[in-house]
Amino acid sequence: MKRDQAEELKSLQDTLYFIGGKWRIPVINSLCNGNRRFREIERSIPGITTRMLSKELKEMEMNKLVKRTVYDDSPVTVEYEPTEYCRTFGNIIMEMINWGRDHRKFIQKNKE
Amino acid sequence: MKRDQAEELKSLQDTLYFIGGKWRIPVINSLCNGNRRFREIERSIPGITTRMLSKELKEMEMNKLVKRTVYDDSPVTVEYEPTEYCRTFGNIIMEMINWGRDHRKFIQKNKE
Repeated sequence: MKRDQAEELKSLQDTLYFIGGKWRIPVINSLCNGNRRFREIERSIPGITTRMLSKELKEMEMNKLVKRTVYDDSPVTVEYEPTEYCRTFGNIIMEMINWGRDHRKFIQKNKE
Repeated sequence: MKRDQAEELKSLQDTLYFIGGKWRIPVINSLCNGNRRFREIERSIPGITTRMLSKELKEMEMNKLVKRTVYDDSPVTVEYEPTEYCRTFGNIIMEMINWGRDHRKFIQKNKE
């Protein structure tokens, strides 16, 4: 099958647009690792601010990446759960982790 | 083997930092598809401006992702070639293309 470069680029750019920014992927990763409460997610991502995480989760809820559930306990608790759709980023995240790991090994080797 | 979430996140963030911005990945993809001349690369990526591509290629040359060769023809020609290192992004790019393609199918199906 002949590769359609224009179609490939469009697919690639759609994905990049969806991933947008530096926090979306770490937040998806944190949710897929089982973190559910706001503070848990926040603590799992050093460098993210409360404001940025809040904004990210709101956008992800609108985009059906995250399901937000309010439990009527006392005090009220809120949980964030990744949707099936959110989990479709698994392969991209895995490849990114692999790349980062290989890259670090490569840098360390060149230092020795 | 127990997964080390902090290590995984670090690898992930290193990769995201390296990919940075919306043009790096499309430019890598264009080079890996065989485009070598500035105008070829530019035409292969709708939306990129001359200034942005120029900046991206300069940064990529500094980061050893691209080899720039000047041929002493008349007029002088310049070629950009992806390094082996540049090609290590292949798996990430492939997964991003797959995701974008699935996503488009999903959207189209839901419209019907």
